[in-house]
Amino acid sequence: MSTNKPRIVVLGAGYAGMMTTKQLTKKLSPEEAEIVLVNKHNYHYQTTWLHEVAAGTINTNQARVMISDVINPNRVRLVYDSVVKVNKDNQKVVLENGDLDYDYLVIALGFETNTFGIKGMKENAFFIQDVDSSRQIYEHIEYQFAKYNNEENPKEESLAILVGGGGFTGIEFVGELAEQVPKLCRKYDIDPNIPRIINVEAAPSIMPGFDEELVAYAKKSLEERGVEFREGAKIAECKEDAFVVNEGEQIKAGTIVWTGGVTGNSILSKSGFELTKGKVTVEDTLLAPSEDNIFILGDCAWVMNKEEDRPYPPTAQSAIQHAGTCSTNIKALLHNEPLESFIFDNKGTVASLGKSDAMGTVFDDKKLYGKTASSMKKVIDNRWLFLLGGPKLTLKKGKFRPF
Amino acid sequence: MSTNKPRIVVLGAGYAGMMTTKQLTKKLSPEEAEIVLVNKHNYHYQTTWLHEVAAGTINTNQARVMISDVINPNRVRLVYDSVVKVNKDNQKVVLENGDLDYDYLVIALGFETNTFGIKGMKENAFFIQDVDSSRQIYEHIEYQFAKYNNEENPKEESLAILVGGGGFTGIEFVGELAEQVPKLCRKYDIDPNIPRIINVEAAPSIMPGFDEELVAYAKKSLEERGVEFREGAKIAECKEDAFVVNEGEQIKAGTIVWTGGVTGNSILSKSGFELTKGKVTVEDTLLAPSEDNIFILGDCAWVMNKEEDRPYPPTAQSAIQHAGTCSTNIKALLHNEPLESFIFDNKGTVASLGKSDAMGTVFDDKKLYGKTASSMKKVIDNRWLFLLGGPKLTLKKGKFRPF
Repeated sequence: MSTNKPRIVVLGAGYAGMMTTKQLTKKLSPEEAEIVLVNKHNYHYQTTWLHEVAAGTINTNQARVMISDVINPNRVRLVYDSVVKVNKDNQKVVLENGDLDYDYLVIALGFETNTFGIKGMKENAFFIQDVDSSRQIYEHIEYQFAKYNNEENPKEESLAILVGGGGFTGIEFVGELAEQVPKLCRKYDIDPNIPRIINVEAAPSIMPGFDEELVAYAKKSLEERGVEFREGAKIAECKEDAFVVNEGEQIKAGTIVWTGGVTGNSILSKSGFELTKGKVTVEDTLLAPSEDNIFILGDCAWVMNKEEDRPYPPTAQSAIQHAGTCSTNIKALLHNEPLESFIFDNKGTVASLGKSDAMGTVFDDKKLYGKTASSMKKVIDNRWLFLLGGPKLTLKKGKFRPF
Repeated sequence: MSTNKPRIVVLGAGYAGMMTTKQLTKKLSPEEAEIVLVNKHNYHYQTTWLHEVAAGTINTNQARVMISDVINPNRVRLVYDSVVKVNKDNQKVVLENGDLDYDYLVIALGFETNTFGIKGMKENAFFIQDVDSSRQIYEHIEYQFAKYNNEENPKEESLAILVGGGGFTGIEFVGELAEQVPKLCRKYDIDPNIPRIINVEAAPSIMPGFDEELVAYAKKSLEERGVEFREGAKIAECKEDAFVVNEGEQIKAGTIVWTGGVTGNSILSKSGFELTKGKVTVEDTLLAPSEDNIFILGDCAWVMNKEEDRPYPPTAQSAIQHAGTCSTNIKALLHNEPLESFIFDNKGTVASLGKSDAMGTVFDDKKLYGKTASSMKKVIDNRWLFLLGGPKLTLKKGKFRPF
């Protein structure tokens, strides 16, 4: 059924895209606009849970939701296809299997891993990028363990796991690994003293920019569970089985994962947007600069914090809040009303350090540690499920691990 | 505590070795003899369940039992070490970490895979040999699936599984694979039409020697579930990613498993026993020829069926029955009584064809098919657990899958 209603096309079913779509269905009547959601897969996944998939703590299906389970396909047209580029000139999205006209466009295509040109990193390291890449990491690690006792001369380093990058994802990932590696040792009859978990960070300390006291807590907690840290270690090259750091020292491992950097989706540059460090610096309204019908959200956007003259950190929390401003502003455009500006409401940040430990800040920089923080982290994780699919989805996919 | 009691040393904690040890503890008083059980691992595993571990149908721990959970370590000295060879001249077993004197010796060291010198088979194929090798097979298969969607140009053949040998193990294994592969497709978002399961048998038909009607049933059942058979296909070479069959045809696959042949443990030849096709043809008493204190059981032995002038088939059922004769004869030797001869009590043979299908013969060659046979197969599987560890072990590790 073709219509003359304006068509809103949302690209990407991540936090920002899903929430924008959901809010548009609430803020607009079916007569006001046609809504189309385009996504590569027929599922949404929790990007902030991917490190748990990569460590084997949770299975893929806990970290994803079928889009049609939370978005009514009778209200929103769901298109499962890959975006090739956006043609701003004629208001078309080029998909792998066809074109799609838009009146209003929301680009929420998420991040791509950035290796900063480190030699061999793209070829030899795994990335915690999406569902497919993350679950391959866990299977790769498990295979190293499954293989070990069958080797005539097993190499201990094959059971070492190297994690490049001591930021949020890298630290949360080694926290999960510290839980999973002892289980793999028991499962495959391997001496628990053989495997190693090594986090390599170029900056003088892991989690650069984070509160020092919290970082010290995280480091101590993880070291007590066997994680090794190499801070101030600049990776010169990633070989098939090693990082080369500093003055040529090699750190060997059977599994190498790079978590050290992200950038905006490469569709942005293919579509002719002006980029700053791989992302588009958007207006306060979240409109792309000099565009009146293209919004850019989530990890594709830099949204400036004018008070501090730097962008807000690109988190799931931000992405979800972008959706509120974006959907409100699309409604305003349809009604010829003034647009609102994005205001970030910082609810805090908590980093998980494994099953029952975490650290972070909530409400006006109150510091949290240990089980309290871990409990808060699960509340945060479950909150998105609640926003997305209400109590039913929260019960089905939520985190209620006892500790 | 050293003793002057005669020492019985049992080598190998497979079906024959475990049952001999258990029966010796019942037939002999602690004062009559010291019993020592030597095994490489601290666990016994169900060799006839390994194809299920290799297909990922059951986990390792269902297929194994801690030896000390079913053999009282206060009654039997448990030595976890690898046998290097037997010195018959001075009645010593050479272990990797020391020597062990014996007065009576039971060699029950099981089989080794026989590749019949097929070029590349040892290097490139996996074997369903023991716990370690079997679980690596499943992890290897799962890794092919986990990797597939991350490849830029995925090769469909990487999801093909080649099974060399259409005997009992090969057929039971493809039966399990036919159950597991669709699950892996769902788990990793892969089109179920892509993977292949291919069984290659050199003889004109799979399961040579087995009842033709039953073989036809098995073939039809497995083909209906997607298994491909290549009968009369002689494997000339096993490459890294293919079998070369007949006149140079290559069948490609990402996983290659060889189930086509077994032979007795190589300790036999290292210890100077005379071998027929890799095994020792034992006396009716199960004593090794011209030995009066060395018994050879299970897959290391050929036990002749005099009526048919050929050896009994080397099965778990036989191995368990060997233990009865052997333990009785050791007691007879201690008491200077005459030895008894082994008589095989054929309870039938059932081959599993997956979760809810099977075929075989029971009681005087009555043929069984389908769910009845599958049910009978589980009864057979659970029977060993009952013999080994009574109702408690049967409940803990038994097979009670509904169908």
